[in-house]
This record gives sequence, C-alpha cells and structure tokens, in this order.
Amino acid sequence: MRIVRFSLEGNVAFGVLERDQIDIIVGHPFGEVERSGRLIPLAQVRLLPPALPSKIVAVGRNYAEHAAELGNEVPAAPLTFFKPSTSVVGPADPVTYPAFSSDVHHEAELAVVIGRLCREVPVERAAEVILGYTCANDLTARDIQRSEGQWARAKGFDSACPLGPWIETELDPADLGIQCTVNGEQRQLGRTADMIRTVPELIAHITEAMTLLPGDVILTGTPAGVGPVNVGDEVAVTIEGIGTLTNKVIKRG
Amino acid sequence: MRIVRFSLEGNVAFGVLERDQIDIIVGHPFGEVERSGRLIPLAQVRLLPPALPSKIVAVGRNYAEHAAELGNEVPAAPLTFFKPSTSVVGPADPVTYPAFSSDVHHEAELAVVIGRLCREVPVERAAEVILGYTCANDLTARDIQRSEGQWARAKGFDSACPLGPWIETELDPADLGIQCTVNGEQRQLGRTADMIRTVPELIAHITEAMTLLPGDVILTGTPAGVGPVNVGDEVAVTIEGIGTLTNKVIKRG
Repeated sequence: MRIVRFSLEGNVAFGVLERDQIDIIVGHPFGEVERSGRLIPLAQVRLLPPALPSKIVAVGRNYAEHAAELGNEVPAAPLTFFKPSTSVVGPADPVTYPAFSSDVHHEAELAVVIGRLCREVPVERAAEVILGYTCANDLTARDIQRSEGQWARAKGFDSACPLGPWIETELDPADLGIQCTVNGEQRQLGRTADMIRTVPELIAHITEAMTLLPGDVILTGTPAGVGPVNVGDEVAVTIEGIGTLTNKVIKRG
Repeated sequence: MRIVRFSLEGNVAFGVLERDQIDIIVGHPFGEVERSGRLIPLAQVRLLPPALPSKIVAVGRNYAEHAAELGNEVPAAPLTFFKPSTSVVGPADPVTYPAFSSDVHHEAELAVVIGRLCREVPVERAAEVILGYTCANDLTARDIQRSEGQWARAKGFDSACPLGPWIETELDPADLGIQCTVNGEQRQLGRTADMIRTVPELIAHITEAMTLLPGDVILTGTPAGVGPVNVGDEVAVTIEGIGTLTNKVIKRG
C-alpha cells in the first residue's frame, strides 16, 4: 500500500494511492486504515510530506564507503542525531539554500516511518512498529558540520529534510537500490544491504533510550557519493520499490 | 507574570499564578493573554511542563568553568544540539534512570521559552520572540555521551529534560543566580552573567538556521559542578527570580 498525504483546495488528508487515483483515508493511517472510497486523481493534488514526525532520529556513517569518503571511521556504536520537525519539506517543495553555509551536500537515505508508540523494541519485533518506508534527503551543511561539534544547525536548517513522495508499507528494506542524482546526473548509488546496522538493529538501539511516536521517522544513513548541491539544481533520491523524491534548490527569497 | 500549565480532574489548561491561586487562561499564553477570572488553588492541581516544545535546542559548553571541568575547550561557535519532545517531564514527574547508562549527570540550565514563530532574529530584537524563562535540567548520560559521537541518546532519553515549575515572563536573564542541589546538598552554583554567549546571541545564532515555534525551548548551558545522580535522589534546580524545579530519580519500573 502506498500512503500519501496531500492538500486539495485547502484541505489536508491522507490517502491510499493506486495507480493515478487517491482513495481518501478517514482520519490517519496509524492502526487500521479506513478507506472512504472517495477517489481523487493524483494529478489534482499537491503532495505533502507523507509523515508529520515529532522527531527525526538519523544515523551517521552507516555505510562503510561513505564513512571512508569523508575520512571517518565506522563508529563502534551507531552515531545518532536529530533533525527537527521544522526541517521537513515534501516532494512538491523547494529546498532553500541556507545563508549561513556555502557547502550544502545531498545525502540520499531510506527513511523508516514509525506506526505506533513504542520503546525498548527488541530487534526481532521491530517490524511490528514500522508503518512503512519513504525516501529522504539528509541535506547537510558540510562546512558547518566541520566547524561545529554537534550537528543541530548543520543538519537541522529549514528544508534540510525532504521526505516523500509516499510511504510504501509492503517492502523488505534489507536489499534495496538507493541512488541520488543531481540534474539527472548520478551522484550516489548503493544498496541498503551495505548498511552496517540494519533497520531492526537501529530501531532497537534508538528505542533503548527513547519513545518513538506514530509518524516519527528514522533516517538510516547514506551511501558513498555525497557532494554539493547549488541553487538551481534538481536533486532526486530514488529507492527501489518506493519511487523518487525530487526537490529543486532555490535561493532564499 | 508566572504562567503555569496544569491538569485538574483530567482537564489541562494554562493559567496565571498569583500567590497560591491560578487564574485560568482562555486558550494559550502566546500572544495576548486572556484571563478567565476563574481561580483555582495551586494546591489542588498537578503542575505539568509549562511548555510543549516542538523542539528543544540546547547549547553545550556555554560556561567556561564547566567546559574546563570536563576537559573541553570553549568552542569557537556555540555548540548546538537537540533534545526531543519525548524527553520532557514536568515538576511533578519523576526522572526514570535509563537502563543503558550507569553515569547520568545533572546539568542545571536557564530555559528560554519562545513566544512566537520566528527566524533570522537579530540580536537586538531577540527579546520580542521570548515568552519567558523557566528552569531546566539537561540530564546527560555521561558514559554514552563519551562513547557516541553525537548526543541524541545521551541527552535525548525519556525524562532527560525536566522543565518547570512555571514560565516567568518579567525577567532580565543577564545576571541570575543558578544552582543545583542533590538531596539538599549544593552541587552547581553559578550566575548567568558567566555565559559565554548571551540569550540574545544564542537566539540569533539558532534562528540563522532554523525557524522557532511558539513553545519551543532553548537551553542555555550549565555552570560548573555537574555530577552523578542516582536512583532515589531528589534533584533541584533553582534560578533566581523563577523558582525551583525538583524531580525525584526513580528506577525503571
């Protein structure tokens, strides 16, 4: 099932996407999904970020080749950081190049959307708390990341977390192709099979410390090939079995 | 004005505290505060965290003596990190000692509560976006902070962010006494005048990157004297002109 969140004439709703039609969901998609049977063509709506996370927990250096390309070692424990809800934009939104950086990088990532309140989730039960998967771009002000010890500003600026285009609920995350292109040119290419810690391991590690809420998002790290984006660029993250999240980079108006 | 958030017989509201009576606020305290004139004795209610932050932006090593006591230098730029909304507890709540750490430290901090949506706030206009101030304890799993490069788990575990007891709106934050006691014994003692970056400077620095929302909280760093808390301890943060935030540390049940 593909779950979209969209706006149409000022109203916002979740829906189930089937081919080019959206079946509007009554309420929200957490728990049993109730379809209204009211169909709207995909072409008529504006797609919004498919989740409204109270928090985004991201993981750094979870692909060995990416850790190496930035001169870092693979950490002994997963390296976790937050991106705030104010950094989220959707598949129809631009990324605004922040004024305080001159070296913003793309980082294509598989995003896990949490389906239910949970804590202390054992690895073998992680699947029960997952609603589905979407594409994410963990945009990073590399210059600020280098100059500031913690990454709140470098990875938490407004529009630093594009999510979308939808949540795919029927997907095995173990071995999916993941790629990033800039203006159609391939920059990152990897497979989720190369993650150092798997999705269930990350969920267990994070929930050992903190409660996750429905709609919270886990970013699972980026494969090698990160590099700069510039104003005017079109950045696209494609994940096998999900689709493509495309965002244009614009100048702060 | 002292703004409390409280629950009474299953209802939750904001109120203005005057001596031992709460005047219930109609709606919320952001913008013009409308008092209902309906009074409730403070003794009858349960105080809740006075703010519901979408995010907490915290600043590390903002007092030189504290940076030195942990063997760190004062950073060239303010060191910013997030604590998640799920880490917030109120003045009537316990702190649950997390199972994944054996070295949790108290960190008494002045908390700034944001009053309106804002970004790119200049230093000289920072006062306009502040609703008021409260006490915070930036509880930190020191062992995890040392072993993991980023601090999401070390500072983001459930109940790692006690806030309260209320928001004081009429206060100059420039030179306030701040102290932390454990079981009545003084551990931390400092003055906000010793902050390396002032409150207005921190707001400008943070909002250069990201939008702050009404109710968001900024933690301004901790003075020297941090140390461990243990199950059974009562930890109290007192800030001059605000009051005392007391939390009991309990074992995970």
